[in-house]
Amino acid sequence: MKSHILLSHGGGGKLTRDLIRDRFLPAFSNPYLEKLGDSALLLAGREKITFTTDSYVIHPPFFPGGNIGELAIYGTVNDLSVSFSEPLFISTGFIIEEGFPLNKLDEILISMKEACIRAGVQVVTGDTKVVEKGKGDGIFINTSGIGRVEEEWLPQTPPTAGDKILLNGTVADHGIAVMTTRENLPVESEIVSDTAPLNLLILPLLKQFPGKIRFMRDATRGGLATVINEIVDHTLLGSELWEESIPVREDTQALCDLLGLDPLYIANEGKAVFIVEKESGEEILEFMKTLPFGENSSVIGELTPRHPGRVILKTPTGGGRILDIPIGDQLPRIC
Amino acid sequence: MKSHILLSHGGGGKLTRDLIRDRFLPAFSNPYLEKLGDSALLLAGREKITFTTDSYVIHPPFFPGGNIGELAIYGTVNDLSVSFSEPLFISTGFIIEEGFPLNKLDEILISMKEACIRAGVQVVTGDTKVVEKGKGDGIFINTSGIGRVEEEWLPQTPPTAGDKILLNGTVADHGIAVMTTRENLPVESEIVSDTAPLNLLILPLLKQFPGKIRFMRDATRGGLATVINEIVDHTLLGSELWEESIPVREDTQALCDLLGLDPLYIANEGKAVFIVEKESGEEILEFMKTLPFGENSSVIGELTPRHPGRVILKTPTGGGRILDIPIGDQLPRIC
Repeated sequence: MKSHILLSHGGGGKLTRDLIRDRFLPAFSNPYLEKLGDSALLLAGREKITFTTDSYVIHPPFFPGGNIGELAIYGTVNDLSVSFSEPLFISTGFIIEEGFPLNKLDEILISMKEACIRAGVQVVTGDTKVVEKGKGDGIFINTSGIGRVEEEWLPQTPPTAGDKILLNGTVADHGIAVMTTRENLPVESEIVSDTAPLNLLILPLLKQFPGKIRFMRDATRGGLATVINEIVDHTLLGSELWEESIPVREDTQALCDLLGLDPLYIANEGKAVFIVEKESGEEILEFMKTLPFGENSSVIGELTPRHPGRVILKTPTGGGRILDIPIGDQLPRIC
Repeated sequence: MKSHILLSHGGGGKLTRDLIRDRFLPAFSNPYLEKLGDSALLLAGREKITFTTDSYVIHPPFFPGGNIGELAIYGTVNDLSVSFSEPLFISTGFIIEEGFPLNKLDEILISMKEACIRAGVQVVTGDTKVVEKGKGDGIFINTSGIGRVEEEWLPQTPPTAGDKILLNGTVADHGIAVMTTRENLPVESEIVSDTAPLNLLILPLLKQFPGKIRFMRDATRGGLATVINEIVDHTLLGSELWEESIPVREDTQALCDLLGLDPLYIANEGKAVFIVEKESGEEILEFMKTLPFGENSSVIGELTPRHPGRVILKTPTGGGRILDIPIGDQLPRIC
């Protein structure tokens, strides 16, 4: 029996799931929360809105391709987007450690400002707390967000066998970019985080193919493999992924091999999984490729009635291996 | 020139105000944020909603009369309430330090659950992050919240000279209750935090006196004196408070004297200031006294055209002293 919080409780894997199922859900049990979506879908009077929250504790706060500030904006924008909504309003809650340099704070704020402009959202409310030196770690940022939903964007039917699984580009870049910085690895690397506002990709898709996308989730903590597991977990559906169709940068793969990491379990910050109805799969894929952050999209697998609750990775040689949910995360504090 | 974050930047006083005005506002400049309200008043399609966020870093997390969990629920409920709205939905973002005892987490979750039931709100979305031992301080909780607004509840006119200032009970109990615990003071004290869901007081007021309340703010960080200063700061209005009409518990006052603290600057978690039109003042006060958390309400002063931007405390002997905005807070990490 575990009696204390472990780092893995925050890793997005099995321990996180258990913590939520055994402790948080019983405390706050209600139909909104029980869906365990990236956002809650709420009724505010006559309007459907989405509501989400995420705290960012990434270490280090500055990494190749970004910093904690834009990550906090895009992360919440993405959670709202994969919940079939248009991100509108963001709140920011800063917890800053005494002694944090103000010029670093300014740098973070500037990139948050630019991120807001790029994503078309507004920070409308905020809070700042300061904790004593040694009681925090530089800077933590919580962002919550509200989006608006048009009824016709929502899926007409839930995911079903035969549905295609689409992905909008290479996996593992964010995690590996952070990892190389954190560990001061003696390697020359051009890998940068893929942090990106996915509403620029998803909103046009929702408008072009209303009701045709059956599920979306961004592949952050725990990576692609964990997200696909969450989709089929406790359902009568299984999933098959085709290894050769999952794009991984060559240098990212090389670093994963060097470090003994599986890119399918590494966090992304600009990649989402799309479950779409079989018939529309190709058409949606072609349109995705014309959109921002969609150029490298591909069909990476499908849902199947076989091996329910399981994710199978099919190798080019015809073999297969089970992709299980990890206990924790290979890289803590990745977002 | 300060180049690093100080504890006082989080204290709710001048340094917090400067941080917001000089750094946060320029970054996120927009009409919603510039109002600097306790919540943002937003338009979600055809509905008016409020949106607010607060991170709770209170030390210690368990204190006489409550813990960080219910504080995080009530604090956000109160921010939505003083923004003329009915609190509905709450998000929770936990940042937990590795090694935090799970039974303490359970205790916090149970009191959050009870707080939600009492306040009539639902936790609909959440997030949990874990940081390494020594990189946090037990547990930090962010809550954001959404409320709904009925047009008629909103003030018909802004605060004006002659308006009465109402307060719903004794000040400084929260800060002193936390302080006695934190410092292990060798005193027997029965002072407990006043943490409370003020929607139970405010909603009935809004329904009974729609449009008659001109401003509300809960007197948290920086206490009563700071809140009144925020109301008149940079306006053509001044404020006079009548010292003998501001309720302070005898034992709270005694501890303040002992510690050299001014109760008017000490944080509360269940007290709000109400600016109401002169003519309705007495009627509103009488109704407040019949409501939960309103029994000890009183008229504590009024807005005046004299000494604009200043808060003057009138003593029973006819003297007066200026209540200025403090630089930081007398007690850091009080919420």
